[in-house]
Amino acid sequence: MTTSDSLRVGIVGVGMMGSDHARRVASRISGARLVAVSDPDRPRAEELASGYDGVSVHDDATGLIGSDAVDAVILASPGSAHEEQLLACIEHGKPTLCEKPLTMDGDSSLRVIRAERESGRSLIQVGFMRRFDPEYAELKRLLAAGALGRLLLVHNTHRNKAVPSPEFRSEIIVRDSLVHEVDVARFLFGEEIEEITVLRPAPTSLAHEGVADPQVAIFRMSGGGIVTTEVFVNCQTGYEVRCEAVGERGTVTAGLSQTGLYTTRANLDGDAGWWGGPVAPDFTVRFGRAYDLEVQAWADAARTGTVTGPTAWDGYASTAVCSAGVESLQSGQPVKVTLADREVLS
Amino acid sequence: MTTSDSLRVGIVGVGMMGSDHARRVASRISGARLVAVSDPDRPRAEELASGYDGVSVHDDATGLIGSDAVDAVILASPGSAHEEQLLACIEHGKPTLCEKPLTMDGDSSLRVIRAERESGRSLIQVGFMRRFDPEYAELKRLLAAGALGRLLLVHNTHRNKAVPSPEFRSEIIVRDSLVHEVDVARFLFGEEIEEITVLRPAPTSLAHEGVADPQVAIFRMSGGGIVTTEVFVNCQTGYEVRCEAVGERGTVTAGLSQTGLYTTRANLDGDAGWWGGPVAPDFTVRFGRAYDLEVQAWADAARTGTVTGPTAWDGYASTAVCSAGVESLQSGQPVKVTLADREVLS
Amino acid sequence: MTTSDSLRVGIVGVGMMGSDHARRVASRISGARLVAVSDPDRPRAEELASGYDGVSVHDDATGLIGSDAVDAVILASPGSAHEEQLLACIEHGKPTLCEKPLTMDGDSSLRVIRAERESGRSLIQVGFMRRFDPEYAELKRLLAAGALGRLLLVHNTHRNKAVPSPEFRSEIIVRDSLVHEVDVARFLFGEEIEEITVLRPAPTSLAHEGVADPQVAIFRMSGGGIVTTEVFVNCQTGYEVRCEAVGERGTVTAGLSQTGLYTTRANLDGDAGWWGGPVAPDFTVRFGRAYDLEVQAWADAARTGTVTGPTAWDGYASTAVCSAGVESLQSGQPVKVTLADREVLS
Amino acid sequence: MTTSDSLRVGIVGVGMMGSDHARRVASRISGARLVAVSDPDRPRAEELASGYDGVSVHDDATGLIGSDAVDAVILASPGSAHEEQLLACIEHGKPTLCEKPLTMDGDSSLRVIRAERESGRSLIQVGFMRRFDPEYAELKRLLAAGALGRLLLVHNTHRNKAVPSPEFRSEIIVRDSLVHEVDVARFLFGEEIEEITVLRPAPTSLAHEGVADPQVAIFRMSGGGIVTTEVFVNCQTGYEVRCEAVGERGTVTAGLSQTGLYTTRANLDGDAGWWGGPVAPDFTVRFGRAYDLEVQAWADAARTGTVTGPTAWDGYASTAVCSAGVESLQSGQPVKVTLADREVLS
Repeated sequence: MTTSDSLRVGIVGVGMMGSDHARRVASRISGARLVAVSDPDRPRAEELASGYDGVSVHDDATGLIGSDAVDAVILASPGSAHEEQLLACIEHGKPTLCEKPLTMDGDSSLRVIRAERESGRSLIQVGFMRRFDPEYAELKRLLAAGALGRLLLVHNTHRNKAVPSPEFRSEIIVRDSLVHEVDVARFLFGEEIEEITVLRPAPTSLAHEGVADPQVAIFRMSGGGIVTTEVFVNCQTGYEVRCEAVGERGTVTAGLSQTGLYTTRANLDGDAGWWGGPVAPDFTVRFGRAYDLEVQAWADAARTGTVTGPTAWDGYASTAVCSAGVESLQSGQPVKVTLADREVLS
Repeated sequence: MTTSDSLRVGIVGVGMMGSDHARRVASRISGARLVAVSDPDRPRAEELASGYDGVSVHDDATGLIGSDAVDAVILASPGSAHEEQLLACIEHGKPTLCEKPLTMDGDSSLRVIRAERESGRSLIQVGFMRRFDPEYAELKRLLAAGALGRLLLVHNTHRNKAVPSPEFRSEIIVRDSLVHEVDVARFLFGEEIEEITVLRPAPTSLAHEGVADPQVAIFRMSGGGIVTTEVFVNCQTGYEVRCEAVGERGTVTAGLSQTGLYTTRANLDGDAGWWGGPVAPDFTVRFGRAYDLEVQAWADAARTGTVTGPTAWDGYASTAVCSAGVESLQSGQPVKVTLADREVLS
Repeated sequence: MTTSDSLRVGIVGVGMMGSDHARRVASRISGARLVAVSDPDRPRAEELASGYDGVSVHDDATGLIGSDAVDAVILASPGSAHEEQLLACIEHGKPTLCEKPLTMDGDSSLRVIRAERESGRSLIQVGFMRRFDPEYAELKRLLAAGALGRLLLVHNTHRNKAVPSPEFRSEIIVRDSLVHEVDVARFLFGEEIEEITVLRPAPTSLAHEGVADPQVAIFRMSGGGIVTTEVFVNCQTGYEVRCEAVGERGTVTAGLSQTGLYTTRANLDGDAGWWGGPVAPDFTVRFGRAYDLEVQAWADAARTGTVTGPTAWDGYASTAVCSAGVESLQSGQPVKVTLADREVLS
Repeated sequence: MTTSDSLRVGIVGVGMMGSDHARRVASRISGARLVAVSDPDRPRAEELASGYDGVSVHDDATGLIGSDAVDAVILASPGSAHEEQLLACIEHGKPTLCEKPLTMDGDSSLRVIRAERESGRSLIQVGFMRRFDPEYAELKRLLAAGALGRLLLVHNTHRNKAVPSPEFRSEIIVRDSLVHEVDVARFLFGEEIEEITVLRPAPTSLAHEGVADPQVAIFRMSGGGIVTTEVFVNCQTGYEVRCEAVGERGTVTAGLSQTGLYTTRANLDGDAGWWGGPVAPDFTVRFGRAYDLEVQAWADAARTGTVTGPTAWDGYASTAVCSAGVESLQSGQPVKVTLADREVLS
């Protein structure tokens, strides 16, 4: 493939995330086009395909991944299907963007990592989109530039307006929400997390009965740095994600300005006028641009036959930290994180 | 009087402004105490006096000003009474804080200025409280420190939530609201205003019929600097006063942070959460501290028998600019400001 | 062309703006690819083409515009060449993105507008990228939504760190910088500008001798609204562009948060630590995203054979306002803007 | 004493804090005057007294406290002298403002609390000035007003530019810095702290060898709420104190706007212009107003023979939490806080 040809992308799984990626590839990504989809719910796949020109529907993920008409694959299927699909992508040498989680446990993740290593190519990028958010990327750049000195602490805030409570249990808050701060901490420090504590404050009365919300997590990094994170998925106000990095000679905060617009409004709260603006309602508003940049970077690399960005190891390590976090949430105690030896992995 | 004695303050006029000053002197000013009041509405003066220990009620301003039991005077009477009262204060050598306007026209103001000069002492401070606001004072200090280079432009915003419209005619907006920016411009540039233009945009439908609101004023300073000001006294949101000074090498803005608190709130506007906070409802909230600092500085100086702060000349010049502004508001043309020769005044 | 084919874009003129658009079309725009360039400086065109796959170099603009291998054209040539090139684009039915100015004077602009009308299709989009900036677009959306009531005033700030002074004369500041606020005012009010005044404050000592910098412009809209604008192209701090819209029941400000990151830094200014962040150095940083969105929207429309966004009329009207502005800058007086009758134009 | 007489204040201890209070009482507090001082370093006391009119110097604290010429006492002596001095103040019925710590251990604090109770009057106010800071007070008011729902979490930041390291050991950071957040947590929640953990991240290289700086503290409140606090006393940037309270339906943050002024500056960091402003250099700038309001409120109450504001119990409880915090800092484990039974104390 010459770089003037566009990348032919197939998407496995067309639920909320997969259909969002379909729209993105079809309308906002340079040098890529959507050519194939598959989903166990075939009518859903057909309906999506009918909205675009020239998109074929495959009976199953295996067929799509193996197709000569597909250059690269986005996996937006359930995590339980990932191991088999990732191994197929590696076997066929297809650059892949895999939504988190990489797989459902450590052993399967390690099998994927080994297979990728044996293939001799970087093929798996995990969907931690925050690394592509302009503010997080700039924060990382400023730390790397050195003017703030060594990184000492990170304080995160992660709030959702509300979640469908019955399904979104306490453990899911760790695995689906906190996992982003797990990756952010590893990304900013460039180190592994050695220990995690997840505390349960007295819960909000606005979460479903029995759900530990909010939660406060503390990570201890391998170099001794500490990360504090508030996760609060029923905060009522909107989607607020902030990250303050504290270095030896200064700090940087991402996510402080909720929106670029500053407004004043009459009589918003009883008789009082207000300054400010609306809180982003959800992650598609706050991180829509990050997803676009993530997929563009992935497509740019995929056209040369590889990937950049967060790796299968990042997916593996994040899952391991979250598993320890779930254990801590239950016991109330700090839990050590155990990772395979990265160097002698194979 | 040694400095350990407290300053005995008399207040002439106990309407909204005078009673506010009474409370201030009685409870928030160090080294001063309220001892006397007068008002044409004697029952109003008596009611106020009854709220404090040891405050006498005088039949008229002259008696209060001449009383041996009064060290210093605050004039909160109507502007039409000021000339006679100010001349009495000067005659009795009483340090005076005179609420704006100094007097009702240029000739009377010049008579006051001449009398004060002949007395050989600074005795008249005019109540332009913004000079004492911590932000305006710091802005002035930064400009004076020189790091921003020469001052080139000033942009002001002056908004009130609403005013009692029938009485608050277009000309009053110039004389009572814009007058503050007139003083601010003279204060920051350290120059006189040479020309003023007051434009009438299409008015808001929320002002009284026929009132020119908002207004946009342009001042040309004697050194060539330009000042733009929006005055909007029925803006509906609250009291917003901002001032951006533009120097050759940087800018400073006062009044940008509406309040020190940053909040997020659920469901404030329909379903959307909001970040921000309430706009100050009125000048007592925004400039309450400035009034306290103004009166404290005045009392500190008065205990030594003099005044500092904005002078009778500042009061005279501001009135002259506003008179030209009213003329411009009517004609739509720029109007030159004519001032007496300050040096050969007497 | 079906929508699944990518739009084949030719660029006329590969100076700073043209080469920037080349990079954009080649790497950041979905559904479009760069296929042809032309430039009077042919080696410059060849060098640019050599950086991409499959880009042909044409001897002249006419050849590129007429080529069957080119679906749509971006004009980044000097304004003096625009009339002839635009007429060629219309003749060949090619959707065109024309960088400002549309043409060099009113008569030539009207000829282009008439030709486009006679073609029966919208084919000319003028490069006012601010309308595509997320903040300006959201500001417009909020005004249109009505919660702020009727628009009364707009206050703009437009600052550049520095410009190559000898070439960037006083008139150029009006035609190249202020022209953006001219379009913003027309866009936000949805009205024409009836009168413009451009004031010359005492200039900064850091501009080239004789250049009127800063400038303060006042527009009177056809509905009576007023717009104030500071243009300051040697402000030393960086690229600061702000726009505050004042409605009857509230305000909206774009461009207030200079960057999403909030930092604190040790010892930045002598011994003092600082909060804040760097000012955007230039328009490519502040409006890079706006250019991307502008070209994406243009390409999306061009694939269906037309354009949306600012029209040839917008280009014509803006030029007419700037011409009046240059006259005002010289005379110091308000100057009426004369436009052709839009309805009976042909 | 009628309320028109001014309160005669004596100050015990005229080091940095005591001389600051002397200046405050003498020049910024209404209805109070400085009449007496004492200090073991008598020449220091005499030098201070000589700067004011009518201030007598006492040989010792006992003499000052017992003097008929002293109505109320400010204790700015070392904590080790407090028990005896506080008991004397209670014996003589003098309203007292006692700088923290109340005393050096729990038993002595309880003796003071019992003596005060037996006296039948509130006489001891402890110097937690943050409760009087306008932002913290407004934050408390907003929580009490109920619109944010129940308080769930508090996140504090407490940074000093630098401290004299050899003397400012790890434990002192807990006892002198973190103690403020201990009081803030108790104040905002209206509950006691049940458990404290103080973590030691890898330290900054800019603190003295062996000092645990920064520290991260976690409090568990009696009602189940959680408080996280970063204390970093060698952060290099300046004095940054923030507090974010997270309720069920919204949040409030104090201390976010570092200063009311927003500036842009040329070339502050190499070639880049900056927006922002200087960080407050120390607590006298950030909390100077809070101290003034604290002492004014104390003096207003003392003129009626009592005190309001933080009590001896608040001083006792804070000390107990800090002692547990020091233990946690050493062990790395959560430590329970043991308090006397408040109800059956005597």
